[in-house]
Amino acid sequence: MADPRVALYALPGIPDVQAGDALVPLILAALHRAALALQDGDVIVVTQKIVSKAEGRAIPLRDVTPSPRARELAATTGKDPRLVEVILRGSRGVIRQRGPVLIMETRHGWICANAGVDRSNVGQPDAEIALPLPADPDVSARDLRAGLHSATGADVAVIISDTHGRPWREGTVNVALGVAGMLPIADLRGQPDMFGEPLRVTTVARADELAAAAGLIAGQAAEGLPVVLIRGAAYPRGEGRATDMQRMPEHDLFR
Amino acid sequence: MADPRVALYALPGIPDVQAGDALVPLILAALHRAALALQDGDVIVVTQKIVSKAEGRAIPLRDVTPSPRARELAATTGKDPRLVEVILRGSRGVIRQRGPVLIMETRHGWICANAGVDRSNVGQPDAEIALPLPADPDVSARDLRAGLHSATGADVAVIISDTHGRPWREGTVNVALGVAGMLPIADLRGQPDMFGEPLRVTTVARADELAAAAGLIAGQAAEGLPVVLIRGAAYPRGEGRATDMQRMPEHDLFR
Repeated sequence: MADPRVALYALPGIPDVQAGDALVPLILAALHRAALALQDGDVIVVTQKIVSKAEGRAIPLRDVTPSPRARELAATTGKDPRLVEVILRGSRGVIRQRGPVLIMETRHGWICANAGVDRSNVGQPDAEIALPLPADPDVSARDLRAGLHSATGADVAVIISDTHGRPWREGTVNVALGVAGMLPIADLRGQPDMFGEPLRVTTVARADELAAAAGLIAGQAAEGLPVVLIRGAAYPRGEGRATDMQRMPEHDLFR
Repeated sequence: MADPRVALYALPGIPDVQAGDALVPLILAALHRAALALQDGDVIVVTQKIVSKAEGRAIPLRDVTPSPRARELAATTGKDPRLVEVILRGSRGVIRQRGPVLIMETRHGWICANAGVDRSNVGQPDAEIALPLPADPDVSARDLRAGLHSATGADVAVIISDTHGRPWREGTVNVALGVAGMLPIADLRGQPDMFGEPLRVTTVARADELAAAAGLIAGQAAEGLPVVLIRGAAYPRGEGRATDMQRMPEHDLFR
């Protein structure tokens, strides 16, 4: 039987991450459990949630005092004013609001529901937590890549992923909010298609394809698989940033 | 070394497809070349382009007479009026237009650039062709699934994929326009997360994740790999349709 072109491995047994935890040793231990050794060209996809937790971004809602603007938006959306305050602090502005739906532009420039802020009581019913996105997912990715390289010598790409809804289509897909060791977009301009004609589709969001593929096994569910290894995928090497995928507002028809 | 959780195989050697070609024998021959036998639970992802060609959907532009509306929109966008005519015939309406960009709602209800109509001269400079989407990609998927089942006995899912741009994010990703043998959305509502709390992300566009994953190897490029086999991915079985992923216009904030 042919070898697969691309293989996705779940890294088992990564525990609940706490503020201050170093993710590189957790990932290395999980690779060891899976009997996997990193290879040049591998991609490690990490869900933003454990990055944010490790970076100590969690905010107990009892410590949050909502601003008047947060109270106002909380009344319109039916959300907890303290949660809305955390969302506003992580945002440049509101893109759309209707009913409980609040589509924000984050401080990083991503457009997503609730500015990517997760809410959780992390197993403790009396301790409600808001978990914003990592402060700079591209920097988080770069640090993880450097740590993995230093420990293993392997030249891998790292992607920090998040789960987003989309216009027009129901259901979420994972996208890349941070990358390191790759360019997020594969530029195929000038390459011929199978008939030798110049390609019409010219730029492929490779980092988003990789994040979406990892979403096939990165469980939000009980299994909890926050790190996925992808082997065999072609991607453009280089020092790119996920924010390179952000469309300039003046070129966007859906703001 | 651990086995991969999910494996993607390219099916090599699928030739340029002509109107009337039966895709099932071409896929079976490619599986044989790759020394792969279909298994229950496999997913076969086929790019819409070869489906549309096989179904004889290609339209020589020299045979198209543009309507006044097509001429008008051609003038605004700088496109060939005959191409615009083909786009309009495949559409319910214009969602956005600015400069050369024309975002349409297709007759199937998909929102995408140019109603998904590809333009090509298929290797013949004097024979410009417009290639609309398959008439009903869910039906195309169902037919392929039935044909593969009949030939192999395997219970596989089939996805017809297309390459779409998105609001806010540069670069394209592949999405599902037709499915068979699966529900396109995995409904995780009621499942606990790794802390035993009810999940917050509740519906995952599994068919789109699978299409995006296949995009990692389904080349638009010279190699031309229009069919990808995905093995090991969990997806909800059932008789779903990709159109189940279409958000109702009244629930959409970006029309």
